[in-house]
Amino acid sequence: MPLNLKRSWSNEELEALRDTAVRFIESEMQPQDESARKRGHVGHALWRRAGELGLLCTDIPEEYGGGGGDFRHEAVIYEEMARRGLSGMSNSVHAIVAHYFLNHGTEAQKRKYLPRMARGELIGAIAMTEPGAGSDLQGIRTRAERQGDHYVLNGSKTFITNGFLAGVILVVCKTDPTQGARGTSILIVETDAAPAGGDAPGMQREGFRVGRVLDKMGMKAQDTSELFFDNVVVPADGLLGGQEGQGFYQLMGDLPYERLIIGVSAVACMEGAYAATLDYVRERKAFGKPIAEMQNTKFKLAEVATQIMVGRAFMDRCVEQIVAGELDTATASMAKLWGSEAQGRVLDELVQLHGGYGFMNEYLVTRMYADARVQRIYGGTSEIMKEVISRAL
Amino acid sequence: MPLNLKRSWSNEELEALRDTAVRFIESEMQPQDESARKRGHVGHALWRRAGELGLLCTDIPEEYGGGGGDFRHEAVIYEEMARRGLSGMSNSVHAIVAHYFLNHGTEAQKRKYLPRMARGELIGAIAMTEPGAGSDLQGIRTRAERQGDHYVLNGSKTFITNGFLAGVILVVCKTDPTQGARGTSILIVETDAAPAGGDAPGMQREGFRVGRVLDKMGMKAQDTSELFFDNVVVPADGLLGGQEGQGFYQLMGDLPYERLIIGVSAVACMEGAYAATLDYVRERKAFGKPIAEMQNTKFKLAEVATQIMVGRAFMDRCVEQIVAGELDTATASMAKLWGSEAQGRVLDELVQLHGGYGFMNEYLVTRMYADARVQRIYGGTSEIMKEVISRAL
Amino acid sequence: MPLNLKRSWSNEELEALRDTAVRFIESEMQPQDESARKRGHVGHALWRRAGELGLLCTDIPEEYGGGGGDFRHEAVIYEEMARRGLSGMSNSVHAIVAHYFLNHGTEAQKRKYLPRMARGELIGAIAMTEPGAGSDLQGIRTRAERQGDHYVLNGSKTFITNGFLAGVILVVCKTDPTQGARGTSILIVETDAAPAGGDAPGMQREGFRVGRVLDKMGMKAQDTSELFFDNVVVPADGLLGGQEGQGFYQLMGDLPYERLIIGVSAVACMEGAYAATLDYVRERKAFGKPIAEMQNTKFKLAEVATQIMVGRAFMDRCVEQIVAGELDTATASMAKLWGSEAQGRVLDELVQLHGGYGFMNEYLVTRMYADARVQRIYGGTSEIMKEVISRAL
Amino acid sequence: MPLNLKRSWSNEELEALRDTAVRFIESEMQPQDESARKRGHVGHALWRRAGELGLLCTDIPEEYGGGGGDFRHEAVIYEEMARRGLSGMSNSVHAIVAHYFLNHGTEAQKRKYLPRMARGELIGAIAMTEPGAGSDLQGIRTRAERQGDHYVLNGSKTFITNGFLAGVILVVCKTDPTQGARGTSILIVETDAAPAGGDAPGMQREGFRVGRVLDKMGMKAQDTSELFFDNVVVPADGLLGGQEGQGFYQLMGDLPYERLIIGVSAVACMEGAYAATLDYVRERKAFGKPIAEMQNTKFKLAEVATQIMVGRAFMDRCVEQIVAGELDTATASMAKLWGSEAQGRVLDELVQLHGGYGFMNEYLVTRMYADARVQRIYGGTSEIMKEVISRAL
Repeated sequence: MPLNLKRSWSNEELEALRDTAVRFIESEMQPQDESARKRGHVGHALWRRAGELGLLCTDIPEEYGGGGGDFRHEAVIYEEMARRGLSGMSNSVHAIVAHYFLNHGTEAQKRKYLPRMARGELIGAIAMTEPGAGSDLQGIRTRAERQGDHYVLNGSKTFITNGFLAGVILVVCKTDPTQGARGTSILIVETDAAPAGGDAPGMQREGFRVGRVLDKMGMKAQDTSELFFDNVVVPADGLLGGQEGQGFYQLMGDLPYERLIIGVSAVACMEGAYAATLDYVRERKAFGKPIAEMQNTKFKLAEVATQIMVGRAFMDRCVEQIVAGELDTATASMAKLWGSEAQGRVLDELVQLHGGYGFMNEYLVTRMYADARVQRIYGGTSEIMKEVISRAL
Repeated sequence: MPLNLKRSWSNEELEALRDTAVRFIESEMQPQDESARKRGHVGHALWRRAGELGLLCTDIPEEYGGGGGDFRHEAVIYEEMARRGLSGMSNSVHAIVAHYFLNHGTEAQKRKYLPRMARGELIGAIAMTEPGAGSDLQGIRTRAERQGDHYVLNGSKTFITNGFLAGVILVVCKTDPTQGARGTSILIVETDAAPAGGDAPGMQREGFRVGRVLDKMGMKAQDTSELFFDNVVVPADGLLGGQEGQGFYQLMGDLPYERLIIGVSAVACMEGAYAATLDYVRERKAFGKPIAEMQNTKFKLAEVATQIMVGRAFMDRCVEQIVAGELDTATASMAKLWGSEAQGRVLDELVQLHGGYGFMNEYLVTRMYADARVQRIYGGTSEIMKEVISRAL
Repeated sequence: MPLNLKRSWSNEELEALRDTAVRFIESEMQPQDESARKRGHVGHALWRRAGELGLLCTDIPEEYGGGGGDFRHEAVIYEEMARRGLSGMSNSVHAIVAHYFLNHGTEAQKRKYLPRMARGELIGAIAMTEPGAGSDLQGIRTRAERQGDHYVLNGSKTFITNGFLAGVILVVCKTDPTQGARGTSILIVETDAAPAGGDAPGMQREGFRVGRVLDKMGMKAQDTSELFFDNVVVPADGLLGGQEGQGFYQLMGDLPYERLIIGVSAVACMEGAYAATLDYVRERKAFGKPIAEMQNTKFKLAEVATQIMVGRAFMDRCVEQIVAGELDTATASMAKLWGSEAQGRVLDELVQLHGGYGFMNEYLVTRMYADARVQRIYGGTSEIMKEVISRAL
Repeated sequence: MPLNLKRSWSNEELEALRDTAVRFIESEMQPQDESARKRGHVGHALWRRAGELGLLCTDIPEEYGGGGGDFRHEAVIYEEMARRGLSGMSNSVHAIVAHYFLNHGTEAQKRKYLPRMARGELIGAIAMTEPGAGSDLQGIRTRAERQGDHYVLNGSKTFITNGFLAGVILVVCKTDPTQGARGTSILIVETDAAPAGGDAPGMQREGFRVGRVLDKMGMKAQDTSELFFDNVVVPADGLLGGQEGQGFYQLMGDLPYERLIIGVSAVACMEGAYAATLDYVRERKAFGKPIAEMQNTKFKLAEVATQIMVGRAFMDRCVEQIVAGELDTATASMAKLWGSEAQGRVLDELVQLHGGYGFMNEYLVTRMYADARVQRIYGGTSEIMKEVISRAL
């Protein structure tokens, strides 16, 4: 089955990075995946190891400790993880946090956080969603009150990726509740959650509490959590960018980046699932011949391969656009929408081709299927994407 | 949203049974579901309690300890469990086993097993699928060799519903490996697995071993297991029906019954998921108004309600036909195919309407979504159903 | 392929009527279909012939010249036409007009129009839609002004089924433009368009003009037309029901009837298309074997057969409900929505199985495919149906 | 709605050609479309006019009278016709015929036919499909018998695009019926069908007869015809390439070219339909507001726009590959499969958004919808594409 997937935007340096990523993933991530799935997080050590190997913050300038690359460098790593169904270490949210610092932070904030994030010492999270409020920024009730040289933060958040392991959390909150978007700011909360060497959160910042690692349908190794802020004191210089009321604008600016990550990962996941299924149907027999030789199997695989190729061409073009600084929000939303919807359809077909084994978690496509369901939901649901696309009218 | 779901085939007696079932389910099953999901089985006590209440073997004649009812009596109970997303206690497989005894067993076999099954003392399982052989009966390699007054059984089975708790297992095996279908028989294996009072398997029959409760995508409370038979001795009167080579014929005879169960459960599951989603979208707000008032939500729910109503009409008609002894295999396969496919589509939409909560296992639709994926696979995959339907040409 | 389609609601009398209908259709309608498609209408003679045979107004009481039957009698005839892809003679719109008279007309109006409609002398049409206004009753601009003992009617209508041949047209208009729904009335306009013996419109009522027979994608033999009213004088007793402002209410009352007709016809059309395709794929060979033997063909046909059976069960239940006076608007809207959507999907698959011949108008499925596209649009679009269903919340 | 459709492969020269094409199409083709649709062909004059303007054989070397361009030059013209729903003049089949000459013809054949084809004096057609044989080359029964210095040709063909107007037809036939693929050859038949100045076929070659212009669901302006050969004498130098038994190989070689044309046209058609629909929904109101403002409309248009953008990226990449000589058959088949399937889905949605007008042939999307149905069938059905893709395993 021809997946002539030569990346239009790749080069030797990027392929070398890909090799490093693959080695790390296969020798250090995969062997721990089952235990991470049971525990609900991948642990700090893996993050620090990724940092050592230069696999974090690859698109952050070298002066801030990053790799000095661009979106392609990140994409290479997302692809190799997604291809293997490894969703525990959300280096994508980590990268998004790094970009918030890079694009909106003060010089001091960049120097303080980015190098530690690049080393994997400090894991990043964004705390936006609140119980009962979905992705609707207007409904945010978390409140930061200025008191002298600090803010006092109160509220709760949910569905926070990297929430359990995070060392630095960007908390979206209201600094002026009398206003809508313009009353929204982002506070930098250090959790003190990552003492060297251990996996469990250490002494936590007073008033901050990590709730349960949420019991999800999939993405079992990812520490999606609830967070509670009860009179947490944040120094005034913990205001992202140093100016109140910029939160909404800061959040909007990076949406193309976030959405393309999901699109790129979706295609890579389909590729991995397709390859695994191809192996499966060639080996498995039913009624005396390999499943691969049945017309239904051949047709389903041809449809899947076609979707992957089409998606690959689109994502490649979007990658080129984002590197050139030309990717608009609507197109990025299409990448997120189409990629995640195709991923849902494709995984569903590939699970079916596995028969009973498609329901068993030891199979890659099975885990991917459950993981994939959230791709259409987080980072803005498919419905939100459609709203965004249609507004570009 | 109008789900004018008056059951065409119901009556007062059946609704009384439904009430009993609902009380049992809500007061005894639901409270234990979370722990059953963690443990991987519902335990023996729940089965015995269901037996006490007359909720097992309701369509087995009273002379064999059953309820003396017909398919409708079973349907009422399946519906109420499916509506609540409770898939741990597979009373459907139990019922199928009971029907094998009833339709194909010798009088002695009926008298020996049916009353204990009706009381929930003995849980039934069918061991057909083998590792690597799928639903393909031709490929069965489990072997029963006649030695004097007993058989010696060797082989292994997988994906066995109720496998961990089962007290009596119908093992599909070859009594004559030189022949295909006509060399296939069913042996009755007592596992001695259910000592009064405990949940763990007791002293097991020599050579018989229950493998792991399989780690599945969904149906977490159901004890789907691997089984191993290593020189297990089965007395000659443990041959179902007392005649060798009848296995294939015995398996074929009950297919309409098995498939309609899946179809009926699929519609009931959709009804429960729909009701839960309706509650959800009325309460949840986004962008200042309940999700229920958005046109997309309204349209999706209208589509879902329509599918449920259409499916309900079809299943009701099939129920009437099976009670009248008129349901053919092709029509029953349509019930299985359409029901399970609709269930997959509908659950997918309803999960999406839940946004982020749709990925959290504490929500009913989330658990149902993961459970539902296997409906298109077990009991004959959708592909097998299509083969069967097309063969009726 | 098993389409065990025994009609749950049929009986000997209805099957006799079905036989009459089939004879008429096969010996008189089908031979003229090609010329009717070219001409854009079936001509008056065919209508009168249908009247002679008792095939019009079968569910109108005998005292008004009708057949004295119920919805089932009409359904039998719709089914046999739909099964053969004959959409030229819209006896369904004719029946709906008859029901407006029956349910809302004065005694004099019933006696004046119903017998002539039953004899096929007077063909009925409903003029609701206006250019640019769609199905939105609020937007109606056709105006009837009361002047002494008559109304003066001005306005234009479009998409009027039976518009070219109609002898009596129910024109939805505003009698009080200061009000919305309550200012809407229905006027009975006699067109004088059907002089005995000829096919062309005769002397037309002054000020009334039939525009072009519209050039449609399908339904080529049906005289869907534009109508123009320029100071048309209508006697005061031409007000349906004799009371102004009842138009909206009169239109709403018969919606279940209208929608179920579309649902029932949709399933019959699928049945006819399925049977024709089955014949085709058995005869046609590709790569040395009949197309019917390819797995893709078998699977597609199995899916189609399943949809037909499921739809049949639902429509049968709706027929029973309407005969019992119990069919609510939401359920009827589901019949219209599901039926027409399934018809679209199914015809698309069956056309594809015909290969190149599926694009040639000499094939039944080809004509049916083009005809079917409007089923999701007229009688209230699928979107309107979803609104209606969701409002039943 | 953002269709940021900058063609990755375009340049100034190509855009100038596009302008020429647009002027020709809008001023000369569109005004004649309605009459061409009635007549069943566009007439010879239009072809000659296209030739004059340099719009035919743009990718044939200048030495043979062509434009000296590459696939991009053809693509620009296909796109502008497809965008406006003009399918009458099949310059794509004409181009394919020209490529057969270019790639497989003898030098004399190139010099004899290509300049006249480029001038539009000679319209090209390929006669492959036979009644009852579909796209299955094995089943070809048309026979060419060598007699001295000529061949005698007997057989019949159907579904021949440009069949009525064609001046030169490449007839796929058996020169050695005892062999399969290796007995297949292509004969060049001059029809003498195009006398200067007139539209009707002139004196036809003896024994050659053009049957009816087929009555199709759509593509009304295209002269798809049956052809009959009854002892037609073809000089021996009318054998394409001058060597017998090469027909199969010659046909296979140009498949990527043919399939990509369909893919590219599919996306352009969707773009045109999308733009027309956007205009429509902004103007039309329902229930007091423009349809464009309803959430369902917005979501459907966002989905459509996304499919167009994704398809555009894929086709652009394929165009770059074919120009570089790197497009393999499997990838081209994906372009054909995905493009035509997306076109079908998208047109269906856009017709629906037009309500009743979507069924009227005066609307662009309506004509496009009927035309589009054959895209999944001709040039190899979707099923054939899936076979081809899966064979690339």
